[in-house]
Formats: sequence, structure tokens, C-alpha cells
Amino acid sequence: MTEFDLIARLTKSLPGNATVLTGAGDDCAVLDLGVPDSLILFKTDAVVEGSHFTRETPPEKVGRKALARCLSDIAAMAGTPTAALITLALPKEFDADHVARIYDGLNELAQQTGVAIVGGETTTNPERILISIALLGTVPRGRQMLRSGAKRGDAIFVTGELGGSIAGKHLDFTPRLAEARWLAEHFDLHSLMDLSDGLAGDLPHILRASGVGAELLKTAVPVSRAAKLRTAEKPPFVAALTDGEDFELLFTLASKDAVKLVDGWKQAFPEVKLSCIGRIIEGSGVIIRDRNGIMPLKSGGYVHFAA
Amino acid sequence: MTEFDLIARLTKSLPGNATVLTGAGDDCAVLDLGVPDSLILFKTDAVVEGSHFTRETPPEKVGRKALARCLSDIAAMAGTPTAALITLALPKEFDADHVARIYDGLNELAQQTGVAIVGGETTTNPERILISIALLGTVPRGRQMLRSGAKRGDAIFVTGELGGSIAGKHLDFTPRLAEARWLAEHFDLHSLMDLSDGLAGDLPHILRASGVGAELLKTAVPVSRAAKLRTAEKPPFVAALTDGEDFELLFTLASKDAVKLVDGWKQAFPEVKLSCIGRIIEGSGVIIRDRNGIMPLKSGGYVHFAA
Repeated sequence: MTEFDLIARLTKSLPGNATVLTGAGDDCAVLDLGVPDSLILFKTDAVVEGSHFTRETPPEKVGRKALARCLSDIAAMAGTPTAALITLALPKEFDADHVARIYDGLNELAQQTGVAIVGGETTTNPERILISIALLGTVPRGRQMLRSGAKRGDAIFVTGELGGSIAGKHLDFTPRLAEARWLAEHFDLHSLMDLSDGLAGDLPHILRASGVGAELLKTAVPVSRAAKLRTAEKPPFVAALTDGEDFELLFTLASKDAVKLVDGWKQAFPEVKLSCIGRIIEGSGVIIRDRNGIMPLKSGGYVHFAA
Repeated sequence: MTEFDLIARLTKSLPGNATVLTGAGDDCAVLDLGVPDSLILFKTDAVVEGSHFTRETPPEKVGRKALARCLSDIAAMAGTPTAALITLALPKEFDADHVARIYDGLNELAQQTGVAIVGGETTTNPERILISIALLGTVPRGRQMLRSGAKRGDAIFVTGELGGSIAGKHLDFTPRLAEARWLAEHFDLHSLMDLSDGLAGDLPHILRASGVGAELLKTAVPVSRAAKLRTAEKPPFVAALTDGEDFELLFTLASKDAVKLVDGWKQAFPEVKLSCIGRIIEGSGVIIRDRNGIMPLKSGGYVHFAA
């Protein structure tokens, strides 16, 4: 049983109640707690030593990353983050200074993004550091952006450049909060998510939730410089499709709005790249078009060619 | 540096914002997110294999306990739980059936208490299972019960019986949600918290937050049958003071209200014991009175006598 099978089994029959507008399966849960103009966003995310950072990673960057990942999920709903709780699971012989430095990085990003740190706990995890962040946010009613609204003919866009995050960006990325709110305010997005598992792993979430397929134009996918420098590891285009932790925005909107979007974006975010990488089509799954024709993208992030 | 020192250092200068009514240091954070009649409660709690359960603990009970602990914190604010996110950190070679059984126990308690499970994540923790729960709740504005309002002359009450939870109660306890809401609705409580670290460790939280001391009457402290059966481990009274995971309510109110409380309680919760165990006094710290006189209780849960 894979992780996906397990999640499918676990989320099949979760208890609900009248407050739940969107439960498991999107970037955040969306709750109606009775705020007149807003809905509540609710998300947790954990980073674990050995998977997401090492003992050698500067502790400030570990703390920053833990919060930034969660903030990226709030961005993926076009929301504004509000308050966070920090769970720090530590070996017993932790270095208190190390922990304080984790908080320094975390607090700095919290201050920059207006997030209150309202508590949390420390507990014991003997072998390694684990940090779990629980984050609340808000979004104007009706402006929450889900994965499920992509429509045939939509243009597919991605911010920034993809691949090679492990070379450094995974510790330094800026969650696309301002960009996502601007998009939701000015355009009728049909679907939005953040890229955490790579385009090839994440785009299918939108496609399955929306009951559609996608055609990507190979030359349009923005490959990062870091991916291009790491050809010994992986061909750059494959890295751009399959590397995790890009934390860029992936979204779709009606193709008629695409030109206006590109023009507006250049004014609003001149330093952030925006690329139209393909379109939503009937069917399911992802096909990739290059000068030689089209080929299917295998599910689960695995790419069947190596160009 | 102890855990308490570390927490003090970490919480000294946490980022805040205008939504925060109560941040780190009470049972839950209390946020004003603009719900007209309610405030939002926000809490996380983690259980770790080897500390809070073992590989031999029935998985349903592990899941139940993980959620119940968090629910007890909502009870400690006199709130109503709403929605939870589940973080499951697992060894790579987890047994999917084991995990599904954890969820079975968790979901059952969620259903009983009206809690929606709105998502979460699974991540890798190679050596042991760790479950962190993030829980949202609500409380009517003005009815949130903090630790900081105890006043000289208050009567100190505790629900249930204390000590020996490790014999089984720590897996089976019922969070005192209904009792706490009833108390907040019918009485002017001055302080309220739940007992997770033992009376001797937890009462000082109320005392420090309120700037007062307490005198406990030794014979009035309700010692559980489990604690009485475990005299080989610890004298029963010491167990009642220092054993963790009672998850009972500890609260204070004006002594003039004590008789009315005891009468009303017997009607409302005939099967749940309620004990007046002492009173709030000037000063700081806890003293314990028995037939021989009074003696101070040492801080941090350690008791200086062994009767």
C-alpha cells in the first residue's frame, strides 16, 4: 500500500460537521465559523530531520522553512495567514541554543507575513527533530481557490522557475501570498494550488479534482538555473517536472483572460516570472507536446522519457 | 536548561497581531477572528510512541488518546471543539492496517464530540510513531476560562479522582467538555485548566498566572482507586499530586458560590465526583494542611513528604 493508497483509505469516511466547506484533499481545509465576510483556512505541515533538513542545516533556515511551507498552502487558497502553533519534537539532549535559533528564523518570517505565534509545545522525539506547524488563515467568502474548478480550454500557468530546489531554494523560498491574493482579486481563477511535489505529481491533483486532462508544451515549462546546473543528477526538464519543493503557484483560468493576466502580472510583479505552460483538455492525465509530437506523463511524478 | 526554561525563553518575544486575545501560556490560544458571538480556540498536542503509548497499545486507543488530550484543552477553556487536522509521522515500514486502526479510534471520538476531521498529512519519522493533532474550537465571547483570574478566598475544585492514570485511564478518559461548558454557563469561575501534569505541577500554573498561593487540605484531595492499588510504586497521595494525565478539570470560584455549585453539580453530573480541595490564599506556591499542620509543596511536581 502506497502513501496515496493509505491516504485514500483514511480520508474515505472522515467525520464531518456543518462548518466544513472543504475538508481533506485541498491545500487547506476551508471552514465557515460564522465570520460575516470571511472563511477560515486551516492547515498543518511537518518537517523532519533527515527528510526536509539535516543537523547541518542552519537552524534559522529550518525554522523559516517549516513556517514557509505552511504559508505556501495558505497562498494556494489565496488566503491571508493569521496565527500559528509550533510543535517542536526534539531529542532529549537538544541544544537549547539550536532550538532558539530555529525560533529566530521562524519568528522573522512570521513577522514579515503578519502571523502571530500563539503557542505550541515541545515534546520528545529521541532520534531526530520534527517540527509541525498548525496555521490558521482567512480568505474573503467566495474567493477561496480550490483545485477542483479547472475547465477544458483553460490556460495553465505557473509562477517562477521549476526544479533543483534542493540546491537552496527549498530553504529560502518566498511563499507566494501576495501573488495569489492579487490573482484571486483581479482574475476569475478556475483552480489554484502550490507546487510541493513537483509539477508532474501536483498537476494531476487539479486534473483529478476537476475531471479533466492537461497538455503541456515542453518548451514552455520554465526550468530553473539550479536544475540546469544539476544535469549530472537529472535532465533539467525532468527535474522541472519531478523535483519537489518548488513552492510556486500552479493555476488555471479561461484562456480568454490569459493576455490580460500576463500584462497585469508584469506590472504587479515585474521580478517574478509567469509562464503559460499548456492547456486543460478533455480526458485525464497529462500529455507533453514537443517538436516530435506528444507523449503521456506517467502518474506519480515518474517521467517516461529523459530529454 | 529545563523544558520550562526553554519555553520561557522561546515565548518571551513571540510575534503577535490584533487577532490574539490569549497567546502562549494558557490551555488554548484565544483568537478574535470576527465571529460576532464567538472567539476561536486553537490548540495542538502531540503523542509520541515510547512516551505516551507503546507499540503494544491497541492502535484504536492511541488514536483516541491523541484526540482526547487535545479535546481536554478545549474543555479547559469551556469551549466546544469544531475541527481537527491529524499529522501522522510514521516509520517507513508502517503497517497500514495499524494506521487505519489509529484512525478508527480517533474518528469514533471525533464523531462522539462533533469534531470534523478536515485533513492532515502523513510524513516519515523513521524510528517511532508520532501523532500531532491541531484542533479548533469556539467559545461564546466573554465565557472563555483562563488560568489567570484566581482570587484570594476562592474555593479550589477538582473533578474526578487523581493519580494512577497510567493503569488505564490515560487511554480511556472522557474529556470534560460538557462539565466545563456547564460550569462556565452557570457559575462565575475565576480560573480553569485541565490536569495533564498532575495537581502539583499544574496548580502552580494558575497560581503564577493569578499572582496568588493555595492551601490544599490533604484529606480532601480525591485519590483514585488506581493510585491506591499502586502503593508499591508511589504513596497514593503522592500519586494523586504528581501523576500526569488525569485530564480532570481544576478550577476556582468565589467560596460563596461553592455550596450552590456542589448542589447543582450533583444534579447535572451525578456520576462525576467533584471535590473542594482547598482555597486560594495570598502569596505564592502551594501549602498542604493535614492534622499535623502545614507543609510546603515543592515546585515542579516533587513532593517533599511521603505520606
